[in-house]
Amino acid sequence: MYEKNLEIAYLLDYYGGMLTDKQREVVDLYYNEDLSLAEIAEHAGITRQGVRDSIKRGEEQILEMEEKLGLVARIRSLEKALSEILGLSEELERYAADNVYVRPLAELAKRIRKAADELNTQG
Amino acid sequence: MYEKNLEIAYLLDYYGGMLTDKQREVVDLYYNEDLSLAEIAEHAGITRQGVRDSIKRGEEQILEMEEKLGLVARIRSLEKALSEILGLSEELERYAADNVYVRPLAELAKRIRKAADELNTQG
Repeated sequence: MYEKNLEIAYLLDYYGGMLTDKQREVVDLYYNEDLSLAEIAEHAGITRQGVRDSIKRGEEQILEMEEKLGLVARIRSLEKALSEILGLSEELERYAADNVYVRPLAELAKRIRKAADELNTQG
Repeated sequence: MYEKNLEIAYLLDYYGGMLTDKQREVVDLYYNEDLSLAEIAEHAGITRQGVRDSIKRGEEQILEMEEKLGLVARIRSLEKALSEILGLSEELERYAADNVYVRPLAELAKRIRKAADELNTQG
């Protein structure tokens, strides 16, 4: 086990489904609930060393999946661009609302914002 | 093995990295190159039954990963909305180019299209 790697907590949200229930719980308690190894050991009824091993295996699996698949990097870049699009379309919508000559654009801007917004809330 | 499931070919692009090289090759030859089991057996130097088993295991792994993680469904919906956004922003850009009063919007529309376009080509 290395320094607590915040990337793990993030990747766990996406790849946690491939861990066993027990392993996912242990990694979650360590990374998201910030429990100590001793606390997790008590909670899970296993030794401190067992907890350490379980976290290590979980980390390795999670990092290996992202290294091999890269799906989270892909989702991340899609979501980043979407939030940029969302900002731009809000700007556009305000502009269209304020300028009588561009009223026809207000509807278009709203549709763009809506499409981006729906995606963002799925994220 | 069931009917050829076109979803498998699609999911293979995303989850193929988690199969062994051999397994990925066999599944790829079957689903993407449309080779027969006999042809794949000859190519891979294993029995027809070995090919069948390998494809079946590969299919199961791929389907299980998507069932547990759902990452491809997520990427798919992000990409679908992006292509919608792309269409709308092109419409907006044309409108802005044709109407002298909305010239200030042309730049904004271009930025939206660019953001959506960059994502699309990553897909």
